[in-house]
This record gives sequence, C-alpha cells and structure tokens, in this order.
Amino acid sequence: MGGRIAPDLRLAVGAFRPVPGKGPRDECGVFGVYGHPEAARLTYYGLYALQHRGEESAGIAVSTGDRLLSHRGMGLVTDVFRDEDLARLQGPHAVGHVRYSTTGSSTLANAQPIVVETRRGSLAVAHNGNFVTARAVRARLEDEGAIFSTTSDTEVLAHLIARHRGGGGIEEALVVALQELTGGYALVLLTEDRLLAVRDPHGIRPLSLGRLGDAWLVASETCAFDTVGAEFVRDVAPGELVMIRDGHLRSRQALPAASPSRICVFEYVYFARPDSNLQGRNVHAARKEMGRELWREAPVEADLVIGVPDSSISAATGFAEASGIPYEMGLIKNRYIGRTFIQPQQGLRAQGVKIKHNPLRLILEGKRVVLVDDSIVRGTTIRHLISLLREAGAREVHLRIASPPYRFGCHYGIDTADIRDLVARGRDVEAIREAVGADSLHYLSVEGLARAVGTAGYPGSGFCMACFTGEYPVPVDEKAGKFALEARRHAP
Amino acid sequence: MGGRIAPDLRLAVGAFRPVPGKGPRDECGVFGVYGHPEAARLTYYGLYALQHRGEESAGIAVSTGDRLLSHRGMGLVTDVFRDEDLARLQGPHAVGHVRYSTTGSSTLANAQPIVVETRRGSLAVAHNGNFVTARAVRARLEDEGAIFSTTSDTEVLAHLIARHRGGGGIEEALVVALQELTGGYALVLLTEDRLLAVRDPHGIRPLSLGRLGDAWLVASETCAFDTVGAEFVRDVAPGELVMIRDGHLRSRQALPAASPSRICVFEYVYFARPDSNLQGRNVHAARKEMGRELWREAPVEADLVIGVPDSSISAATGFAEASGIPYEMGLIKNRYIGRTFIQPQQGLRAQGVKIKHNPLRLILEGKRVVLVDDSIVRGTTIRHLISLLREAGAREVHLRIASPPYRFGCHYGIDTADIRDLVARGRDVEAIREAVGADSLHYLSVEGLARAVGTAGYPGSGFCMACFTGEYPVPVDEKAGKFALEARRHAP
Amino acid sequence: MGGRIAPDLRLAVGAFRPVPGKGPRDECGVFGVYGHPEAARLTYYGLYALQHRGEESAGIAVSTGDRLLSHRGMGLVTDVFRDEDLARLQGPHAVGHVRYSTTGSSTLANAQPIVVETRRGSLAVAHNGNFVTARAVRARLEDEGAIFSTTSDTEVLAHLIARHRGGGGIEEALVVALQELTGGYALVLLTEDRLLAVRDPHGIRPLSLGRLGDAWLVASETCAFDTVGAEFVRDVAPGELVMIRDGHLRSRQALPAASPSRICVFEYVYFARPDSNLQGRNVHAARKEMGRELWREAPVEADLVIGVPDSSISAATGFAEASGIPYEMGLIKNRYIGRTFIQPQQGLRAQGVKIKHNPLRLILEGKRVVLVDDSIVRGTTIRHLISLLREAGAREVHLRIASPPYRFGCHYGIDTADIRDLVARGRDVEAIREAVGADSLHYLSVEGLARAVGTAGYPGSGFCMACFTGEYPVPVDEKAGKFALEARRHAP
Amino acid sequence: MGGRIAPDLRLAVGAFRPVPGKGPRDECGVFGVYGHPEAARLTYYGLYALQHRGEESAGIAVSTGDRLLSHRGMGLVTDVFRDEDLARLQGPHAVGHVRYSTTGSSTLANAQPIVVETRRGSLAVAHNGNFVTARAVRARLEDEGAIFSTTSDTEVLAHLIARHRGGGGIEEALVVALQELTGGYALVLLTEDRLLAVRDPHGIRPLSLGRLGDAWLVASETCAFDTVGAEFVRDVAPGELVMIRDGHLRSRQALPAASPSRICVFEYVYFARPDSNLQGRNVHAARKEMGRELWREAPVEADLVIGVPDSSISAATGFAEASGIPYEMGLIKNRYIGRTFIQPQQGLRAQGVKIKHNPLRLILEGKRVVLVDDSIVRGTTIRHLISLLREAGAREVHLRIASPPYRFGCHYGIDTADIRDLVARGRDVEAIREAVGADSLHYLSVEGLARAVGTAGYPGSGFCMACFTGEYPVPVDEKAGKFALEARRHAP
Repeated sequence: MGGRIAPDLRLAVGAFRPVPGKGPRDECGVFGVYGHPEAARLTYYGLYALQHRGEESAGIAVSTGDRLLSHRGMGLVTDVFRDEDLARLQGPHAVGHVRYSTTGSSTLANAQPIVVETRRGSLAVAHNGNFVTARAVRARLEDEGAIFSTTSDTEVLAHLIARHRGGGGIEEALVVALQELTGGYALVLLTEDRLLAVRDPHGIRPLSLGRLGDAWLVASETCAFDTVGAEFVRDVAPGELVMIRDGHLRSRQALPAASPSRICVFEYVYFARPDSNLQGRNVHAARKEMGRELWREAPVEADLVIGVPDSSISAATGFAEASGIPYEMGLIKNRYIGRTFIQPQQGLRAQGVKIKHNPLRLILEGKRVVLVDDSIVRGTTIRHLISLLREAGAREVHLRIASPPYRFGCHYGIDTADIRDLVARGRDVEAIREAVGADSLHYLSVEGLARAVGTAGYPGSGFCMACFTGEYPVPVDEKAGKFALEARRHAP
Repeated sequence: MGGRIAPDLRLAVGAFRPVPGKGPRDECGVFGVYGHPEAARLTYYGLYALQHRGEESAGIAVSTGDRLLSHRGMGLVTDVFRDEDLARLQGPHAVGHVRYSTTGSSTLANAQPIVVETRRGSLAVAHNGNFVTARAVRARLEDEGAIFSTTSDTEVLAHLIARHRGGGGIEEALVVALQELTGGYALVLLTEDRLLAVRDPHGIRPLSLGRLGDAWLVASETCAFDTVGAEFVRDVAPGELVMIRDGHLRSRQALPAASPSRICVFEYVYFARPDSNLQGRNVHAARKEMGRELWREAPVEADLVIGVPDSSISAATGFAEASGIPYEMGLIKNRYIGRTFIQPQQGLRAQGVKIKHNPLRLILEGKRVVLVDDSIVRGTTIRHLISLLREAGAREVHLRIASPPYRFGCHYGIDTADIRDLVARGRDVEAIREAVGADSLHYLSVEGLARAVGTAGYPGSGFCMACFTGEYPVPVDEKAGKFALEARRHAP
Repeated sequence: MGGRIAPDLRLAVGAFRPVPGKGPRDECGVFGVYGHPEAARLTYYGLYALQHRGEESAGIAVSTGDRLLSHRGMGLVTDVFRDEDLARLQGPHAVGHVRYSTTGSSTLANAQPIVVETRRGSLAVAHNGNFVTARAVRARLEDEGAIFSTTSDTEVLAHLIARHRGGGGIEEALVVALQELTGGYALVLLTEDRLLAVRDPHGIRPLSLGRLGDAWLVASETCAFDTVGAEFVRDVAPGELVMIRDGHLRSRQALPAASPSRICVFEYVYFARPDSNLQGRNVHAARKEMGRELWREAPVEADLVIGVPDSSISAATGFAEASGIPYEMGLIKNRYIGRTFIQPQQGLRAQGVKIKHNPLRLILEGKRVVLVDDSIVRGTTIRHLISLLREAGAREVHLRIASPPYRFGCHYGIDTADIRDLVARGRDVEAIREAVGADSLHYLSVEGLARAVGTAGYPGSGFCMACFTGEYPVPVDEKAGKFALEARRHAP
Repeated sequence: MGGRIAPDLRLAVGAFRPVPGKGPRDECGVFGVYGHPEAARLTYYGLYALQHRGEESAGIAVSTGDRLLSHRGMGLVTDVFRDEDLARLQGPHAVGHVRYSTTGSSTLANAQPIVVETRRGSLAVAHNGNFVTARAVRARLEDEGAIFSTTSDTEVLAHLIARHRGGGGIEEALVVALQELTGGYALVLLTEDRLLAVRDPHGIRPLSLGRLGDAWLVASETCAFDTVGAEFVRDVAPGELVMIRDGHLRSRQALPAASPSRICVFEYVYFARPDSNLQGRNVHAARKEMGRELWREAPVEADLVIGVPDSSISAATGFAEASGIPYEMGLIKNRYIGRTFIQPQQGLRAQGVKIKHNPLRLILEGKRVVLVDDSIVRGTTIRHLISLLREAGAREVHLRIASPPYRFGCHYGIDTADIRDLVARGRDVEAIREAVGADSLHYLSVEGLARAVGTAGYPGSGFCMACFTGEYPVPVDEKAGKFALEARRHAP
C-alpha cells in the first residue's frame, strides 16, 4: 500500500496554537440541539462550556430543515466564530464539536463536525472517542475503492453509513456501522430532519440529554446544560441510540449494553469540569473524595497541603479536610497560561525563568508540604514543581497522586502521545518517587479510586481503568494499536 | 434524495474576495513539476503566472517521494503562501492549482488540489474544466454508498480512480474513469512516485509540457514556463495521457482523439494571457488579428480606436492598424481594481462615483470613437463605459466585439452565472446595440474568429465555439445542464 | 478652547478586546531592565507576569546604547509580540508597560511606553498612576504652544522634561517636572544610556527593585522578579529617584516623602497578584487576614464559605479558617473567561444562559452560605451571583466584603468608570444589601482592613483609602476631577 | 545631542508590504472634503484614485463639527478601511492621505493625517512634499523644549502652528509657520470647523480645487475629482491659501508666488495618473508629446516601439506616432505585480525565473526594437529588461528615456533612496548606455521635456527640474540635505 497523506488544510492566516500543559489530551466535546430557533447560538455557548475538552478546533453545523450549513476553524470557540458566522447558521437543529489533538493532525481537515453528502442526504457527525477497529475497516473500505480526505476515524463511520444498503434509514445504517466499529465513543449526528445521539455499549465516553423548553439537547457534560440554562434530563445509556425527529424523541437499545458499564475514570480524575455530573456523580465531589481516600491510604505528617492548580484543587481540599492539615495556596499559576507565548531560550531558562507557576515562599518556608496532583504523565512538570517548592524553602515534599500509576495507552479517545514517555512505564513507585524528587509518593489505588468515584455512581456501573490496569473492556488489536501509536509519532 | 450540502470551510480569518469584472469566470489554472529540488517554489511562481485563471483559491501538493504534503487557502497565490509554507512543502514533485468560482461555492473545501487517500496510496488532483457526466456518475456513486465532502466534480474522479478494480495501476484507473467522465478538461495528478497529465479527447482545455533542466513541467499556459525559466516542449495532445515516473516520460493515447480537435476559442478571446501560446498560436497575435478581422467585417469612419482595458487592448490595436484610425488610451483603468473595496452606497452612486474607469475628455471630446471589447456578457459594464465615453464628449461610439454574440452556456469549465442574464440571449444585434447604447455594433463572425485564431493553429484543429453557436462537441444532457445552472443560482 | 481629539490609531486588523469583569480598572504595570543582554525578552516575561495589571495594550522600548527601538500593540503581551519583534529589540536596557483603560481611550496612540525625541535625546516613559495636576499643566502647555498626540497624562510629563531649561540633565528635569505633576505614580524612564525609576512622595503606587546577576530590574510587583528568576532587592521608597547608569545605581530623595506613606490599599484588596509582596507584605497573606478580620467583625452561622473566583479565594479561605466553617468551591468559573465572546442576545439571556459562573447545586442545596468578595463596584455581578446561588438551592446567602464600601473616585490611577454607578454611592449598607439581594451584608471596616494588611507593613506606613473614605492624600482639584470623569463618559 | 529615535508603531498584526518597482518614491497624495454628508466615504474613493501616490499607509480624519475622529493604518486604502471604520467616521468635513516611504520609516507613527490637540483646538494635517528647513526648525524647537513622536516634518509644522502667539487664528499661524518652513508642498488641514489648503510659493507639488454639489474638494490630482463625480474648479495657485468655513471659500496669497512657478516635472514624467490634468496639462498627452520629442531629438531606424509597462506606454505610443514605427506589446507585465510575493532564492534566480515581465518572442525575434522608458533610477530594472528582450530575439535595442539623466536628489518630497546609487551619477550617457546594455541611448533634453509638457501649461509657469539639473528653486542647505540622505541610509 502507498504512503501516508498529510493533507494540511491549515488556515492560511491564523496562529497555530500549541496546547501546553501537563495532562493527556485528544479528548473532544460534543453538543447537539434539536428544535430551538437559536440552535447555533445555543451550541456556541454549549461549546464554550465544553472548551476544556478541546482547544484546537471548533465547529458547528446546522440544519435549516432541508439542508446543512456549517462553519469550522482552528482555535478556540471564541476565535472561530464571529457574530456573522452564527447569524448565517440559521436553522432549528445544530451539532457542535470542540477538539484536541496532537500537533501532527492539527489540521482544519480534521476539524469537526464533518459534513458529507450521501445517498441518504446530508450528514454531519460530531464524535468524541475512538473506534478501535477503524484502521481495519478503513483498509477494507479503501480496498473497496473508498477515498479518504481526513485522518480521522469519524470519516470511516460516515463511509459505513453511506454504504449501508438495507432499509431502516440512517438509524439502521448507523447501528449496523457501529456493530463493526467498536470502541469508546459518544456520537451526535445531524441530518436535514433529525438528530441522533449514541453512546458506546460500555458507556466509556459520557453523553447526557437535556431539555430547554421544547428543545432537546445532548452534551458531553452537564455543565453545558447549566451554561445554556437547560435542564438535565438523564444520561444517554450505554449502547442507547436516541433519535429526535418531528419534535419527538425515540430511544432504542441499538447495541447490547455491556455489564457492568465502564465509564472512563479519567473523566473524573482530570478531564471533566468540576461542575459537571457524570452518571449522576459530581466531578468536584468525586475529586474531593479521591483526596480523602489518598489520606486514608497514605497519611503523612505535614504542615500544609497544596494542590497543583487548577485541576487538583478539589482533591487537595479533600485531602486537607480528611487529614486536618491546612490547605494552602502555595503555588500561584499565571492565569494567562493557556495562551501561546514565546518560549524562553536556553540562556534565560538556565537563569531560572518561571513562567507558569510561582511558589509562595512565605507559606512554604520551612514547611513539610503535601503536594496533590491528579495524575503524572511524563513527570517533567511535577519534577519541576517539586524543585520550585524546595527552592522556596519547603522542607519536605510528599507527593500524593489522586489516581493509580498511568502506564497504558488509551484506545478509546485519549491521546497519550507516546506511552514510552510515561514516567510510570517500567518504573515502580519508588523509582518514580526518585525520578520526580519527592520525599514520599503515593498513588491512589485502583480500589480507592473506584470507591471515591463510585459511591454515587449508577448501580451496576464500573469503570474503564485501562490506562492504569491494562485491562481493555473493548478488545484491542495490540499490533494495530501499537502501530497506530508508533505511526503517529512519525507524523509531521 | 436528500437535501443539498453547503459545507462552508471558509477561513475563520480571511477576507472574502468577490471577483469583480466583466467576463465569464470559473476557469482554473494547473501546474505540475516532476523532479526538481524546489518543486513547490517553482509551482508557486508557475501559479503566480497563471493567477489570472483563478483568483479565488490556490493550493500546492508535493510528494516527498513517499507521501504527499499540501497547503491550500482562499485568496491569491501571494496571500495563501508564506515562505514557511513553501519551506514545509519539501519534495521533488508538485502539483498546483488556482481557481475561480461563483460565490456560492467559494469555500476552502472546494479549493484544489484535492488530496485523498485510496487503496492505491495518496492522490492529489488538480483540475481545469468540467465533466458533463459528473452529476449522473455522482448520483450512481452515492447510490453505491460513496460520500462526498465537496461540491466539485473533481471528487467524482477521485472516487472512480479509487474504485477501479482492474490492474494497470493508477493510469489504467484514470483512463477507465475518463471513459465515463466526458467533458472538457486538463488534469494533473500526483501520487507518491509519479505525475500524470491528461487532456480531454477534444482538446477543449489547454495543457502544455515543458522542461527545466532534468525536470518536467506541465501547465495550463506557456506563460508559466517563461516565468519559471523553463522551455516549452509541446502541447499535450487531445486524449493523450502523459506519465512521468523514475524520471522518464511515457505517453499513451488514453482516449481516442476527436477529429477535428476543438480547443476552447474563448481562451484566445479572453482567458489566456497575451504572452501565452496555445497550440502554437500566440494569444496576443490572435487578438490583434481579431481586431483586424473586425475592421474587415465592419469598417466605420471614426477618429480614434479605444480598447476596454486590459483584455481588449490587443484587439483594439489590431483594429487600429488595419483601419489606420489612431489607437488611443481613452479609458484609464484604476490599476488597483481587482482588490476588494467598499462599494459606494446608492447616494454616492447617484452622484456619479466612477471607481474603475475614467474617460479622458481631452482625447474623446467631439470625437467619433470605435470601442473594441473582447465579448459582452450581461452588457452592464459596456453600457456603463459607453455612457462614460459620451459624458466625456464622444460624438459617436461604435462598438466592435472581437467574438460572436455570447448566447449559450459553457459545459466545459467556464461559469456563465445564469445564461438568462446574457444580453445576447433572445436579442438580435440591433436589440443589443440599443440595450448598450452604441451608435453601431458589430460582433466578429464565427468565421472571422476562426480565421483570426486559426491561421497559425495545428493542422486539422478546430474550435469549441459552443458558447456562440450552441453546438456542443461533447454531448450534454441538456436537462442536467440546465438544472445545474438553475441549482447554482439558488446556492447561498 | 476647541473640541476634543479622538485620534484612533486602532489596528487596521485586530480584534478589539473589551475587558470584561467586575472590578475597577485602569491600572497599569511597569517593568524595567538595565544591563542584561536579553533585556527585551526579560521584559516580555516580566510583563507576562504583570499582565493582570493591564490587558489592553503592551509595549517594550529598548536602548541599544545609542538609540531607542520600540514595539507596541493592542492586546495581551502574547498577542502583541512575536519572536521576530523581540529579536529586533536588541539592546541591554529596556522598559515595558501593560495597560488597562476604558473603551474610549483604548487606542494604540495611548499605548505605552511612549517614545519621544527631545533636545536631551530620546526618551521612553512607562507610567502607572495618575497626575492630578495634569489637566491644568496641559492647558498651560497648550497655551504655550505645545501639541499633544495622546490623551494620556504621560505625554504631559514628557513635555515638562523636554522643556526644562536648567542643568542637571534628565534627572533634574524629571524632578522639577514632578514638583508640578503631583499624584500617585510609579514611573520608569529610559534614555539611550540610563534607566530611571521614581515613585510618588506618598508611595501610592508600588514599585520594587530587583537584581538578576549584574542587571538591575524594576517592576510594579515582585511576582515579576520571581517569574524572570531575579532577586527582590527592596522597594523604591516614596519620593525616591533611582537612576542606573554605567552599571551603577544611584539614589536620591527626589521629592520629600510624605509621612506616613500611603500605599494604595486596593492593591492588596484586588489588583496585585497573590504571590506579590508589596512593601514586604504578601498579598495572599493580607487577603487571608482580611477574611479573618471579616469573621471577627461579622460572624454568622452558616454551613459553608464560598469565594468569588478568582480574586476572593484568599479572603474566603481566611474567613473559613477563622470561623471553622468549611470552605467550598460552590461557584465554578469558566476558565476561558477573559477572552472576548459573542454576547448572548436578549432571548437567550431571558432563558438563563450562564456563561461565566456555574453554581454547584450538590454543594449549595439547602445550605446557609457565606459569600466572600473583595469589593463591590456597581453591584450587578454580585447580585447575579447571589441569585445563581439561590437558584442552586442556597437557603441563606451572607455576603462579606473584604473592604469598606467603595464610594469615591480614585484620582491616582484607578478608573472607576462613573462614580454615580457605584452601588455604595448614596446607599447605606442595608440599602446595598437589599439591592444585591443578600440575607446579610458586612463590609470590612477601614480599621479592620488596615489591621489585615498593616501588620506586616513598613513601620510608619499608612494607606491611601480615598476610595473608601474620600480623604485624598494628594490634594485634588475637585472640579477638574469631576470634569475629567464626566468628560470621559462622553468620549466615544 | 542624543541618539536617534526609531519608534516602531508597526501593526502587531499586518503584512509588511515592501513597495517593489523601479521608480523613485516618497510621494504622497492628499484629499480633502468640506461640507458633504458622506465626507469620509468620498475621501475613501478619492484616496483610492490617488493610491498610486502612496501604497504604504492611508488615513482619514473627519470633523463632526466639534471634534475630530480619525483612522489610519499600514497598507493600501482597501486594506486599511473596513465598512465599519467609514461608518464610524461621521462628519461633514474630512481630510485623507496616502503615503509612500522608505522601509526605515514605514511605521504607523508616520502615517498621516497626523492629528494633534493644541491651544487652538484639534488639528489634522495631510502633507505631500518636504520642508527643506525642517531639520533646523526641529532642532530649534527641541532646544526650546518641544518633543517629537514621529520622524516626519509634518509634526514640525504642527508645532509651529501651536506655538504661534499672535492673533489671526489658525490661518495666520499657518502662514507664519510656512514663512519659516520653506520647500515644496501641498497641505490640507482640518480643524473642527474649517478646511485649509495651501501650496508652496513655487507650486512644486500639485493641488487642485473641486466641487461636488455644495461641497468643496481639494486633491493632489484631478483624477480624484473624476472618480468621485466632482467637477474640477481650478488649481490652487502657488503660495495661495484657501480656507473654507461656514460653507464659504476664501482665498489669500499667503506667501508671495515665485516667478516663474515651478511645478515638479517628474509628476508629468512618472508620478501622476495619465488621466489627471496638472495645471491644465493632461498627463497622458504630455507623455505622448515626450515620446514625440524623443523621436525628434534622436530618431532611429527600427522595426517596433515598446514601452515599459505601465508608466511608459503613453510616451512609447507618442514615439510610435511620430516615427511611424509600429507600437507593439513586446513586454507583458504580470498584472498581479504590486502585491508582495516571496522572492525567488538564488538558485531559482540563476535558473532564470522571470516573475514580473515576459517578453513576446513572436514579436521581438529578429527585430530592431526601440524601448521607451520614463526615467532610469539605478538602472537595474532596465538592464534586466534589455537582456530579456535580447534573449527573446531582439536584434537591436535602442533605449529612449522620456526625461533627462536623473542625477540629483530631490528635496521637495521625492525619495531617491541614495543618490550615489543613481546610474547617471558620475556617468555620461555613453557610460550609462554601456551599463544598461543598450545599442543606443538617448535621454530627452531638458528643453525637449519642457516643450513636451509646457505647451499647454499656465502662462509664465516653469518647472522644477532639480533632479535633472541640480538647480534647486528653493534654497537647500546642502550639508543638511546630504546629512539627511546619509542618515536615512543608516536608519533601520
């Protein structure tokens, strides 16, 4: 077979925005509206609420009732859409998407929703997650003569839907396609006259249903409903297909639900906004409980507790409450971080330029510090932070991680760059402790994490913890998987 | 079948550039390089030379030898490419494209070259022209489950190539596809290891072959060879497929050549650059001869000859030389025209704001003027110009058009907006004369035009003059054709 | 006298960035470097650390040793400077500025540092603060024939320096100018060969001195020193003029220091970064103490304490610690706030779109809440937040403000828009409570605020609390002052 | 005295647009309107007509009747102004400016109109030309304490006006200022309630008066009146000050007119648009006459005449008419030249990339060619063109220049970069001929040029031909002049 495409539809004008920061990425956020006169504007605010799920590109497609209009671009929601863009996107139904990705595939071509024309009419697809069988299906489709314009697996789904020859309309085509495309996903599809939403049989990726007056909404997280003033109705169930047409919502169990279901635990650990409720469990509350569990599992004598801002504040306060050790703001984060800035050159770096975080000497000097973080990926950021704390006078730094060691790649929608760069890959906890320079280190146990999140979960629900355990609920072709990861590393 | 897609991949940042001016549009320019270390840069200058064939979008794809890289954008070549873009497009083979189109489909999604991945590897296609059977083939492909991301017929070709199941590689797939996709076209295709160029069996759209050192070039017009310092080798023949691989050029008669061949006469009349040679005939020289023919067919007593700048200067000087009537610059065109500017509001228009052309009273006052233009489309511009000449004191204005009345739509790559707007549609010459306000009017006859261009053409070559005569060399499904034109009018 | 200038040097391309948010504005940040090979880059990172003091425009001027180069632009530091801009600004000395302002004067012409040429050579001035006598001096200068290109009072200073006819060089000229231009200010000036820094006699605006190897630095806040890896040396004293030349720092008491000195207390309440130390007092620690004082002054029975993110978190945790009432994250702020977004239209606003803050129902439902905020300006934001808390189930909302009622305009560098819009203007606390919809309301007393900040201040130092008390340490021409405020309201 | 300022107020976002091309630059265009409801829009179209006089920056200031509003930016008129900018510039009076300059001073700070506030109110100044005494006056003003924000001499004028202490209002202040600031200039000034226009006593720079209904207009060239549909009234006379206030135009001889007057002959040779009439003489007609004179002075046996497009077409046709040798389009210019493009690298240049001009071999081969150009500056362009003609087969190339050898710097508003680069500097005609590679060379004589332009000039009018003769009508401080030129070369 031939070489690889690297189509670059990058904006001729427009800043490339590298996504800085410590965590894994390649999450996405989806939002859908059926039956609201201001569908595009609602979607704009919904995406704004979901912006943390993807800062790289944003897009909205609307249906006017008899055709689809769309607008996509690179950057934040607020960069991509101008008032006139929203004004042009007139129509009562809409679907929107925000996206993260690695640099290699940061192209406008991969921005979503993708919009294609098929024998069934027009179709817009917004996708959060990953199909583990996509490469194999794509190879088969290519072999059958299909052409691909993007490197995203969402396009594979569109091909399968278009090729479905049986009856039953688009929903049947979708169901049949998803029998082949296994994985973890939340999908929202829009045609001229209907909105469809479906969640994978294990419920790995979250998806919720809301209502605003007579309009129906779907969103990756409930914070988007709060933002647009809508009411949360319920989660889309694992394997459920929801279709809204002619103002009516119909539901069917499109694919048999796995038991137990397995929502991605990393949503609770890091991705989701603290004010979202996933499967009925508030994220902030779950994180606080992770902090409490951390104390229970690994108490330590210390003078104060610090959380790595912003994602670990909840866990740190939970740790502080459980331990009675005072919580303190010992690290101040420049609130403009997130914007692209000119990186310091080697000379200035050597002189100790500290762009992102500033430790508060007044608070830290001579103190024994518990530093709480949600997870460790490559370990470079936490090592830097620990050395900052020590320079500011911290006598001891005890690192507590609100999740187990992160050792395995995700195949369901989270990009871990290269798993060989994971600090926990091939290291035991003591070796990691040494690598990051902490006085002590404890990772929350798998059981502790499950307890922390699970107390308020749905009955019978479990978690996907594959990135911690290597146990993949949806079978993964390891070779394909590895190849995919390797290949990505060589992408431009 | 479902509704219409209007995918809008418009640049989030980027000025919309309406294409001003009088003539028909929807021409494109193609350029290809095989085997030059600076292939992308050569293509940049080649496209710059072909810019007049398409101001709306530009793109270049290169092959590194084992994969394709591309960059496309809305706007002029100089707007779309920055130095860093060219620097990134490293590789010895390249294909480039400039494009015009109507407003409705002025989207980045329709920019070329399109780049797709297929079972045969990656494929970039740059296309000038139109497939008259594209709608029917697309409908069949959709029915077979294909999906379409653009509204361009180039994507239909890519589908057919990808679906070809027989042996013979990409060139066989291309040949089979073109047996189905009839029309007028010049195509340049690039894969990881080869460059292909093909011209329709009637030779409607031009395509030439050049050489620069060891590198092979193809271009819509020979002026692009001059610009990059290359030598013209020969034209690609009607129905010929040229393939360059491993440094060797092979040629085959892919499709039986029509006899006589029928190059688009409008290329000579209006589209091509005066310094290009099409089928061995210099465009400027052909235009001068049109002016001479005009004088022979319709002499008139007058004091001076004026050409509408810039496209009709050649014809006007030919008329002047033949008639002995002095040629004069009676109309000065603002040389910044072509750039987008804020349109005057009704109040200012009523006060006579003259943005584009300024008549020279000194030259015109009291004079009998012959005004030469290459063609008339809707008649609004020429009517305005004639009234400007009269206001500036011209005593008589005799209009001479260097082509026959333009009455029929083109199905081979030129967009005529709506043929119902053509001033010659349903009007005889006298009615047109009255409509535009000239004292006399003569259109060059079909025979005169053929004589003017043809004296130096290839032996046995004819012209496509369908827009003047309604005689279409490639059969056109009139209903499909009409529908296409109508549909386009309702596009956003 | 004639009319008003409204020169608009707005960027031809570039988004206008309204500064959203609740607090007063028109603060600025200054930064200076003497004697570092990467002076412009250091300044870039210094300004990045001071970005919260001004998001509207940014600028840097450097001295090459024999001339000044500068670059300024509208927007954030990261928007204004590209790598090539910093590369161009070569030279060992630099001065930088970030600026807030009202919309009316949001023009590039008002961006700083201003750079002018005078008989003494070139001069760059970066200014934080306000000269209360500027209008009168400007009128006199205009009367003497001076011309003004900006509406900023910094230009008035430049005029006075240029006009000084006595000896003593630029520092003498500066001292004489400041005898006339009274007010609250921190100034950094750069000429070809020296850097000067001066602070007003009352020490109203902060200014500190730092060292990085052999280089000297000055900055509005010490967090900038931490960011660039420099050491804090000491504050510039009230009335002190520091001049660095030939690598040597000289100091003189340029203007007699007022006793007690009066640093702006609002720097501690709201403006400064929590990791900065002003006059030796850490801002975060001072805010925590304000929270503790609040509890002492106005205890309340409640279930949890919430701070308005982000500026009131410190005070809220102080309140929680003193009271023993748990601190909670009851309000989640969209972390992308600060970027311009399309405002919801009336219809969506009526439907309850909540863009900025989302209350956590889980935490709030049925609870008695203490809401801590640093200050109240117009009261609209806090009223909205209280209603959000109630909608989310809060049973009681007790508002505690970490500063006294804000009732008077600032004449020393903080813009209060229109003092007639202040909710505390003409209302007693009970009326304010009613206006904002709280169950109880307490403002920290002047004494409590002084105690909170002052415990670690310099001996003999006091505060400027004019915005709370109306007692202005530097005499203000009330008529001029009022006129200035009124006039600004009518500006475009 | 201190060093040099290089304030760079360059747009943070915005393409730098080097001005390519062969001719001298630093010309400007001015336009003014008094009493039209759409004053800013009229000015926009007026500047669009004058765009050839300055492509680097553009600006408009309007008076609302009681204050001035303005907008300026780098780039072409169509780049600088958006519809909303014009919409904001409401008011019945306006002044506009387009500007060329060398790279060094291509900064927004130097864009015009400059707008300042003075004791007399607000003042906007648009200036075409140069004050030869500006440096001396500026030094004096600096010595008196004035500060300067720009490097333009227009700011010097504003200072003098502001400093004028006598009565008589702004016009008296202007007259007194111009007694000190000698040179060649056309000035348009706008205050809240009046428009003033003045031309230097020698009439070096052109300025004309027009009328559109009740509104009064002034413009550098009459083509701007044609463009906005206005009528030409008369030229402003040398030394005349025209003031329009309360709807009435008053005129006074502000400065004694020199006799004879001396309009810049280079306006006819190169700068002005062919459709403009300067002092009653049409530019196109003058150029044709230059061509005829060239023939008379230096006839040659040849087969065809070619003009360097676009500026030398008029002269070439004049030469052709006089000689009877046919005029031909032997050089085709890429019509997109003028836009910034990526320069070919050395490798491609060596391979003969020809971006700008393409010679028509068909026409040139074996021919004896007369090549007409308006002037020669450094000689590089014409040398390149001659070699192009020879490569395309021209047997002989006889160069005819429609003006005398260009040997002296202009002190009245035209930038010649560095006079030491002038090919005619220190070379006789034979040496120049050799340098550019022509078979023969003739420059039009001073007398021939005067005859060509002057036949229709005002009675008693002469020309400034200082760049050809070194005879400066306004005394020039040679040292200052030279220093100015030298200094400019070292500017960044």
